[in-house]
Amino acid sequence: MNQLQQSMLNAVETELKRQVGRLAEPRTAPFYEMLTYHMGWSGEGAGTRATGKRIRPLILLLCDASIGKKNADNAGEDTDWLRANPAAAAVELVHNFSLVHDDIQDKSHQRRGRKTVWTKWGSPMAINVGDALFVIANQAALDLKAHYPAEVVVRVAEILSACCLDLTRGQFLDMSYEKRYDLTLNDYWTMIGGKTSALLSACAQIGAILGNADETQIELYRRFGYNLGLAFQTQDDILGIWGDEALTGKSSASDLAEGKNSLPILYALERNGKFAERWRQGSIAADEVSQLATLLDEEDAKNYAENASAELTQNALDNLQQANPQGAAGEALFELTKRLLKRDQ
Amino acid sequence: MNQLQQSMLNAVETELKRQVGRLAEPRTAPFYEMLTYHMGWSGEGAGTRATGKRIRPLILLLCDASIGKKNADNAGEDTDWLRANPAAAAVELVHNFSLVHDDIQDKSHQRRGRKTVWTKWGSPMAINVGDALFVIANQAALDLKAHYPAEVVVRVAEILSACCLDLTRGQFLDMSYEKRYDLTLNDYWTMIGGKTSALLSACAQIGAILGNADETQIELYRRFGYNLGLAFQTQDDILGIWGDEALTGKSSASDLAEGKNSLPILYALERNGKFAERWRQGSIAADEVSQLATLLDEEDAKNYAENASAELTQNALDNLQQANPQGAAGEALFELTKRLLKRDQ
Repeated sequence: MNQLQQSMLNAVETELKRQVGRLAEPRTAPFYEMLTYHMGWSGEGAGTRATGKRIRPLILLLCDASIGKKNADNAGEDTDWLRANPAAAAVELVHNFSLVHDDIQDKSHQRRGRKTVWTKWGSPMAINVGDALFVIANQAALDLKAHYPAEVVVRVAEILSACCLDLTRGQFLDMSYEKRYDLTLNDYWTMIGGKTSALLSACAQIGAILGNADETQIELYRRFGYNLGLAFQTQDDILGIWGDEALTGKSSASDLAEGKNSLPILYALERNGKFAERWRQGSIAADEVSQLATLLDEEDAKNYAENASAELTQNALDNLQQANPQGAAGEALFELTKRLLKRDQ
Repeated sequence: MNQLQQSMLNAVETELKRQVGRLAEPRTAPFYEMLTYHMGWSGEGAGTRATGKRIRPLILLLCDASIGKKNADNAGEDTDWLRANPAAAAVELVHNFSLVHDDIQDKSHQRRGRKTVWTKWGSPMAINVGDALFVIANQAALDLKAHYPAEVVVRVAEILSACCLDLTRGQFLDMSYEKRYDLTLNDYWTMIGGKTSALLSACAQIGAILGNADETQIELYRRFGYNLGLAFQTQDDILGIWGDEALTGKSSASDLAEGKNSLPILYALERNGKFAERWRQGSIAADEVSQLATLLDEEDAKNYAENASAELTQNALDNLQQANPQGAAGEALFELTKRLLKRDQ
């Protein structure tokens, strides 16, 4: 993490606090507290681990800064990317809105090492917390008007909304895939296209637009974000079965125990071998996890997923190369992409 | 209901279908069906009763049409208000998003004579349906760009978002007021200011902006909508206790059996008489409802609420008078306001 990235992350955190501060009123103080808890700023376990990595706003700001066309008012300033900061806050708020609602939908009790909002305050309150984060995301995007023409603000708001509709589609598919054994790899790509790639592609695309890129370049950044999202998710799926935590057999950490429709699992189901036979018999106990991971590996599922992930990573890097990002921000984008896609945990 | 209002309602329905049609894809067909069911267009009991009255978009379009300043491109055309139709769809979609989430939060099984979305498809799906309706509401508002300058679109989107944040605040207060006996009338006005008035004031304000009213007029329309909302809610609270359905003692229809923090109840709690004593002892059975309604009446709560409602109605009508609405749309606004506030059921 270099100096530029650290400056961006600090600026994002400040802007997020300013945006969420819209609810900082005495009469609704406990409501505000629910939002600041989820964002990682208050309550038990508050701090860096609780905030998450803020990858999405960082990508947006790096894309913006990597365009290399300086704003005329501010030529030569290294903090030109600050103009795009409300959009960076917006994408992070969209991400967090979807996490709060996902946790209710998936009945997840833990998020970033802490109790989830619905676990602490109940589902009705948590639904409302997610709704508020989403509203504030929209408000943050509209705040771009201070530094951009209204046409640009409308365009960004449209991209953000289209991405949010994709998120609801992806979430629908994910929920409707539960307890089904007839899914294809095709279904998988559609689902993660909505659930993971839509927001990352919006981040890269919006960053390029706010950096004043031309249309060809904007499209390349968009594809970069999209492929980055697909690569990231396939990588996550591999770690969800063969990562350190997953293999210990702690049921909460393994996609096998959770019955998740992840890439290696869907691949093996299409192969219709021994793994598929066991999977269709129903839930996997913690002490079977390690053995089934080996079976999946033997049926070539790990290899298939690793190849898919490597190909998608290469696509993302190719898109980025073609987009020709400039300066320290450009270097940081390559570095960040490689780091994200070679995670050990 | 005159010809103009009927034309507007038809146009609103067409636009709503067009907007929700964003989800009409084969792969997510069951998801789309959940939205069309909630909107009243499909499934058991579909039809006029299931759609609701579409009061909010109607008010928006009537406010727009009542400004009397014609769009230069289209001078003299009676359908000039069609330009504002995407905003009309947006406010109705916001209303419906909040209904879908409210029904989950309140565990309500029935809405407009039919099963609620969460009752039919479960809470996780219903959360997602509400989210999608909210996203589409934002998209509808942005569609105004076809006929309005981007600055106007951004302004409308800001008003809509501010109103949605008020909705989440009102919802928070409503939920946190459950099972509390120390609420004041002050708390009541804050809560309904968010839950009911915020959206109606946004409708009137946005209508005036899109009709190209001047700033003084826009503010008068905004206040009209706000007071209309307060008057409407107090009226609803009176009917929730002394309306025909409530008095029959069917537990689902009476605010007394539901333990709702409505105006007459909060008034009586502040009076701290016999009603307050009984209320604090816990839930009211169906066969007590009629007797407690009489007790409330004797303690002056009905009279108090009726006076408040009458005063707020007069304020709304005064604001409207000052706003000086023009033509058939102006007449319709007065007529609609009076009709809404003299409901028998």
